[in-house]
Amino acid sequence: MSRGRFIAFEGGEGAGKSTQIARLAEALRARGEGVVVTREPGGTPGAEEIRALFVRGETARWTVETDVLLVCAARADHVARLIRPALEAGSTVLCDRFIHSTLAYQGHGKGVAMAQLLALHAFATGDLWPDLVLWLDLPVELGLSRSTKRAAAQEADLPQEQRFEALGLAYHEKVRAGFASLAAEDGRIVRIDATQDIDGVAAAIAAAVLR
Amino acid sequence: MSRGRFIAFEGGEGAGKSTQIARLAEALRARGEGVVVTREPGGTPGAEEIRALFVRGETARWTVETDVLLVCAARADHVARLIRPALEAGSTVLCDRFIHSTLAYQGHGKGVAMAQLLALHAFATGDLWPDLVLWLDLPVELGLSRSTKRAAAQEADLPQEQRFEALGLAYHEKVRAGFASLAAEDGRIVRIDATQDIDGVAAAIAAAVLR
Repeated sequence: MSRGRFIAFEGGEGAGKSTQIARLAEALRARGEGVVVTREPGGTPGAEEIRALFVRGETARWTVETDVLLVCAARADHVARLIRPALEAGSTVLCDRFIHSTLAYQGHGKGVAMAQLLALHAFATGDLWPDLVLWLDLPVELGLSRSTKRAAAQEADLPQEQRFEALGLAYHEKVRAGFASLAAEDGRIVRIDATQDIDGVAAAIAAAVLR
Repeated sequence: MSRGRFIAFEGGEGAGKSTQIARLAEALRARGEGVVVTREPGGTPGAEEIRALFVRGETARWTVETDVLLVCAARADHVARLIRPALEAGSTVLCDRFIHSTLAYQGHGKGVAMAQLLALHAFATGDLWPDLVLWLDLPVELGLSRSTKRAAAQEADLPQEQRFEALGLAYHEKVRAGFASLAAEDGRIVRIDATQDIDGVAAAIAAAVLR
């Protein structure tokens, strides 16, 4: 059995990643593929516990160094216990965020050196990289507005995960420019225009995956 | 005001670190020093939340890479929010475990490369090292027996923190040999014979601190 494909979905807040991951999973399963859908930070019971520390509470809750180490700790667990075994079993893994979020949010957005982040990633994951990265791109204001509406519509007893949304427009513009810069350097990253309607985005994703 | 001294207490389980830290803190305060007593993993509200993930539950709960990243995440918060500000304010900081526990437990004990651990430490803490390390050394069986008795005497509603105690004698012998090897290379580490009675250990510590 050959190793499965590892496909990461990236992009700012409110880009529609969850919806599109569900659509792609359905399409691939209809073709007979084994599909594992997961997310970061989190994806395993242990990593979800780390996620709770990372995404909740005050924006200034942790320094950027602690943020990076927490997300790498969660990723180490996620890769060792879920992603790598699933790929080795031949499944296609669809992951909502992976290393490029760290490079964009903590690297381009917060100024942590790329070489540092790459070294940490190699230690945490045995240097596992996605085969394909679908970057769902849309203007920052539109994405934040969607994400804020979603949070407002959320049931009141669910914990809010808004630490990064609260960082403001200028920060999220840096993150978006970071994704653009990463995409320019790395052929595995495909930009998808996420201002299209859901069917349009799904069609663009399907084309990239089947290519 | 000059920068305070940073003194770490190291050693295996059951070496009596907490008792001796309290004794030394009392002695230094009697001399008019400002003293901050703290511990790792933990020491700040955020780092204590990370500690709970690290020390509780099954021994195999995390891979060694996740262990290292979690303890470095906790240390980053602890150094940024407590240790460095306290040292800059001129306080003496007494810390129960610090980087040498990581080098002994995850490095010598589990085989993580020293160079990797040193690079992670530099990132997490801005390369902060103790001025003095008091290594409370005693035979592994004696220490584990003391630690197990302490856990048994603990109130039943407190969470057990026995993830590392459960690793067995051979592992803890590697950790002890690791501390010995670190002490042989680093003049800041002073070995204290922790088989002495409490007053004897306290006297040896006082002599090392006042030297």
